[in-house]
Amino acid sequence: MIKVGVYGASGYTGFELIRILRRHPSLSLAFATSESGAGMRLSDVFPVPYDLYLLSKEDADPGTVEAVFSCLPHGAAMETVASAHAAGVRVIDLSADFRLRDAAIYKQWYGQDHMAAHLLSEAVYGLPELYREQIRGAALVANPGCYPTSVLLALYPLLQAGLIGDGPIIADSKSGVSGAGRKPSLKTHFVEANENFSPYSIGRAHRHLPEMVQEIESLGGPGASLIFSPHLTPVDRGILSTLYVPVPSSTTLTSIHNLYLETYALEPFVWLLPEGQLATLAHAVHTNRCALSLTLAGPGQLIICSAIDNLLKGAAGQAVQNFNLMFGLDEAQGLDL
Amino acid sequence: MIKVGVYGASGYTGFELIRILRRHPSLSLAFATSESGAGMRLSDVFPVPYDLYLLSKEDADPGTVEAVFSCLPHGAAMETVASAHAAGVRVIDLSADFRLRDAAIYKQWYGQDHMAAHLLSEAVYGLPELYREQIRGAALVANPGCYPTSVLLALYPLLQAGLIGDGPIIADSKSGVSGAGRKPSLKTHFVEANENFSPYSIGRAHRHLPEMVQEIESLGGPGASLIFSPHLTPVDRGILSTLYVPVPSSTTLTSIHNLYLETYALEPFVWLLPEGQLATLAHAVHTNRCALSLTLAGPGQLIICSAIDNLLKGAAGQAVQNFNLMFGLDEAQGLDL
Amino acid sequence: MIKVGVYGASGYTGFELIRILRRHPSLSLAFATSESGAGMRLSDVFPVPYDLYLLSKEDADPGTVEAVFSCLPHGAAMETVASAHAAGVRVIDLSADFRLRDAAIYKQWYGQDHMAAHLLSEAVYGLPELYREQIRGAALVANPGCYPTSVLLALYPLLQAGLIGDGPIIADSKSGVSGAGRKPSLKTHFVEANENFSPYSIGRAHRHLPEMVQEIESLGGPGASLIFSPHLTPVDRGILSTLYVPVPSSTTLTSIHNLYLETYALEPFVWLLPEGQLATLAHAVHTNRCALSLTLAGPGQLIICSAIDNLLKGAAGQAVQNFNLMFGLDEAQGLDL
Amino acid sequence: MIKVGVYGASGYTGFELIRILRRHPSLSLAFATSESGAGMRLSDVFPVPYDLYLLSKEDADPGTVEAVFSCLPHGAAMETVASAHAAGVRVIDLSADFRLRDAAIYKQWYGQDHMAAHLLSEAVYGLPELYREQIRGAALVANPGCYPTSVLLALYPLLQAGLIGDGPIIADSKSGVSGAGRKPSLKTHFVEANENFSPYSIGRAHRHLPEMVQEIESLGGPGASLIFSPHLTPVDRGILSTLYVPVPSSTTLTSIHNLYLETYALEPFVWLLPEGQLATLAHAVHTNRCALSLTLAGPGQLIICSAIDNLLKGAAGQAVQNFNLMFGLDEAQGLDL
Repeated sequence: MIKVGVYGASGYTGFELIRILRRHPSLSLAFATSESGAGMRLSDVFPVPYDLYLLSKEDADPGTVEAVFSCLPHGAAMETVASAHAAGVRVIDLSADFRLRDAAIYKQWYGQDHMAAHLLSEAVYGLPELYREQIRGAALVANPGCYPTSVLLALYPLLQAGLIGDGPIIADSKSGVSGAGRKPSLKTHFVEANENFSPYSIGRAHRHLPEMVQEIESLGGPGASLIFSPHLTPVDRGILSTLYVPVPSSTTLTSIHNLYLETYALEPFVWLLPEGQLATLAHAVHTNRCALSLTLAGPGQLIICSAIDNLLKGAAGQAVQNFNLMFGLDEAQGLDL
Repeated sequence: MIKVGVYGASGYTGFELIRILRRHPSLSLAFATSESGAGMRLSDVFPVPYDLYLLSKEDADPGTVEAVFSCLPHGAAMETVASAHAAGVRVIDLSADFRLRDAAIYKQWYGQDHMAAHLLSEAVYGLPELYREQIRGAALVANPGCYPTSVLLALYPLLQAGLIGDGPIIADSKSGVSGAGRKPSLKTHFVEANENFSPYSIGRAHRHLPEMVQEIESLGGPGASLIFSPHLTPVDRGILSTLYVPVPSSTTLTSIHNLYLETYALEPFVWLLPEGQLATLAHAVHTNRCALSLTLAGPGQLIICSAIDNLLKGAAGQAVQNFNLMFGLDEAQGLDL
Repeated sequence: MIKVGVYGASGYTGFELIRILRRHPSLSLAFATSESGAGMRLSDVFPVPYDLYLLSKEDADPGTVEAVFSCLPHGAAMETVASAHAAGVRVIDLSADFRLRDAAIYKQWYGQDHMAAHLLSEAVYGLPELYREQIRGAALVANPGCYPTSVLLALYPLLQAGLIGDGPIIADSKSGVSGAGRKPSLKTHFVEANENFSPYSIGRAHRHLPEMVQEIESLGGPGASLIFSPHLTPVDRGILSTLYVPVPSSTTLTSIHNLYLETYALEPFVWLLPEGQLATLAHAVHTNRCALSLTLAGPGQLIICSAIDNLLKGAAGQAVQNFNLMFGLDEAQGLDL
Repeated sequence: MIKVGVYGASGYTGFELIRILRRHPSLSLAFATSESGAGMRLSDVFPVPYDLYLLSKEDADPGTVEAVFSCLPHGAAMETVASAHAAGVRVIDLSADFRLRDAAIYKQWYGQDHMAAHLLSEAVYGLPELYREQIRGAALVANPGCYPTSVLLALYPLLQAGLIGDGPIIADSKSGVSGAGRKPSLKTHFVEANENFSPYSIGRAHRHLPEMVQEIESLGGPGASLIFSPHLTPVDRGILSTLYVPVPSSTTLTSIHNLYLETYALEPFVWLLPEGQLATLAHAVHTNRCALSLTLAGPGQLIICSAIDNLLKGAAGQAVQNFNLMFGLDEAQGLDL
């Protein structure tokens, strides 16, 4: 049994992670921290009977574990992550702090200096379908953002094959409200979000943009072409990204479909739907799957629908998938296929 | 045109009131206040294009109007109400501050001394179906709570006829989330309330209990028999109260139905459903109606379902109904039948 | 008082229309028909106390009214509309039957011959912001589809100014479930639609596409560039269309904003939001407004968010707006500004 | 590995059962049937990638398995169950067909003769907390209804201790829409159920009543005192029953709490909340738990809140719990604690 710890267990992502870890057959949870919930039981914070006490960060000793998951918010994560890493503990960080390889871009988007910039080149971007081998050996994995997961898995086969043409790549994304976190705000008030549907930070304004641009460019693609429009959707969980991508005008749907089939043939968590079906949230929520569908709107005009659960494949589930890779376990252990 | 003012326009009740007042043909809105929104336009606070500036309470001059509506929270309302009243302005107060006629009971339930206790005997409880004549001449109307409106209209014909027997009167009430106010909290967070259903303050613990007990006892009924269980329901608006009431075992459904028909024959806003139909939220929301249905579970066991819109018949709509009465207008003016 | 009749009152659109007509000060409702509800009262079909009997189509005499609204489904509408028109009654048809001016295109998309093709050239497309003068004198108005209303009002100023560049125009639209009609189906089952989000008929496959293409081309725009992706959203009502439109790369947000301000300066039902705000469903539902917001994603990349209530500005509300124009009334009479 | 089969896999209960069976470590699924889906894959019927073909009932051979689960509707189940039973296969029936021990009562409530009445005395009512020992040896288990599960687990300790006094026992129950089945109807249409809340079959009219009466009376309690009011709630899943129960007026909350603690001390799936907390849907959904809370409204007036997931503890989860007992497995195997 591999001993692990969790920092930041009282948010939606941390809680979802705890739920998975409890059922995972190869690990044991040594500690879970929460600043607001320190000294309380998890059942005081969430409606579950789990017998788990929450510690303050200071009372958690990373020296007792082989790996830690950090669900701390960006900015707050970097110091804790760096210190666990320095102690020789393998880290999976679910914040944005180690996703961008360039500290200047981090500062531009997150408005603060990076306090552990020396680790940025070492951190592996934890999208197993792109970086499986690097993840296996990684000391520090930067778990991708929820939106980037849905967008990058949709684009990856095209990027690899160099099939993206000129013109904007549009990702029109719709996310459930858990993506906005558990801290109460007017935006997440039931009466404001229910029976509503709201765009926010559309265009090139959302903090997940630079992360996607970085990965598109790493694969030789046109990162500057990306337009990304997130929308708040009145559901608890799930992201559906509808992507509009220019491809060569001679491309047939069958050829694209085959490309995706080949790329993802062995992937346990990517589900390419048969031609004619469209991915919906229901194809993905409450699982670690990414469901993809392909549609040609006209010559050279590809529409990809990509659905994930933002708390699972978009956060805690993917974190455990990374953990499994890092520790040589079956990649799907503890996860819902 | 009767000039009116509104205190506390930036909560759900205040906003709903503004919406009604804008369309009301016999009045003009002279001012609207909001502590958090002072200096802003209403369109900065709600997604509407209304051309209305919000003032701070201090900048609003009740001397310029004939009536004010106060949507301030309990505790905060009493002083403003008393001062408008002292200035000779007729007041409709939507808070709990003037509903209880006994200052000691107010203190017991609201945890503070009443600063305008001299007005408690003068204030008229603004349930038109019970107190229409007193409302017409009132200088100060205490608009009923949302739950009490749904419960008292359900019980009133039985109370008047002296038909309530021994044993508990149970009001199992379900309310939409707008009833909890606009201030963000974990309870009203979308992800906490959505796909959930939660009892709270059940039994004899909720602040609306003493208000209902007072009115039941005023009508000679057994206030101490009331058990009241509110539940938070994942809808924006509406209250459905399911009441279980002991009646004489010889009572027939037809006789009860006739009693209700007679009592409410001329009421514009009480809708007694035909035998065999059951009141649902959809019978009432977005209108000023109270929909009632009657069912006999067995000899002497009456079930009443009572549905209102908590923001309309349960608050702003009823306030305007009271206003119409106070100023000799058609009782339904500006309201949705 | 202008006497009117309604065909097809028992669907969501028909019911919404009845609700508006009841409050409209200048008309009286002479009859309402429903095939499934013939002989019933409206209160048997919807949870309202309205005192209205539903007739079968055959029992309604258009000779007694000056105007009829048809909410019959496409295919079923054309015959009834043609016969009312032949009787000299002015008609507002809410189906798709008279929107397309080319009978061959109608047949291609709706799979049946048009039985009243002689009226296609006479019918006026009932989008007041584009065709106000023609609507005033029209004998037959084809009320636009809900999606086209949201898309065309978003594009109209650009089309008029000739500002749309090369490349796809993408309309990523999200609609509430009432848009799918009241007939039960698996797609509209609560458990299937709730907590879900589903694309359908995306690309160039939805029946509202040819209607939009026709109007874009009428205004000299590139109809063939339109890609239209509707999505089913778990709300009762409302459409939000997010449009991605190529404009000249020198265009500034201010210049575009001014263009929209000028175009829509006098429009009672188009609400252009201030720069920096984004249109959401909450800006439009339960009103006859279309709320628009403008965002520049980058040089030449305009994003327009357009929100309407699909049952109001997208159907019944716009129908009454057209009626008001046809009968020389205040365009906003009976409608919510 | 124990081989099992499932009849009726294409409803919500059948699908939920399949999901559990796939993860269950001690069984293998030999067949799954569906009349409407015969010949299709499960992925054609539900948005899941499971590699499972659906057979018609006739093509499924119970001779190849040790146990079958029947999720067929009442009426349709009895014959299939009887024939599997006759073939020596152990059966867990999730319909109502074998819950009532009296064929005359079955006929009265379900409107048809019972075709396998000889099995009624043999069938064990599958509520493990009441009948664990009988279930272990049963050849035929009648899995309880969802509402009865929530109500009986709430009442059981009181019934055992003989603590229920005179007067009505009121169960005011609220259920998610999946309880109404997957067949589309107006009642389950999204627009009708969403933002609504509806009582139905209240009093002594719902088919689950006789099942609860039977079990209350088996335990020596006053079945005739039960009033049961179900309400449709706009959530996918979950039942919250609020029960009002007369108890001796000298009873203290602590004594009742201790009684429940003792009764359920060893139960893996009953979660008694600490005093002061109230059970909500969130305490139970997506798990096999029943969450219970106790409140005293006044002397002798107990309120019990009981929450379950109607598809899990109220159907498929409980069925697997019964299966585990029948086959000598850990009772919680494959289920979420």
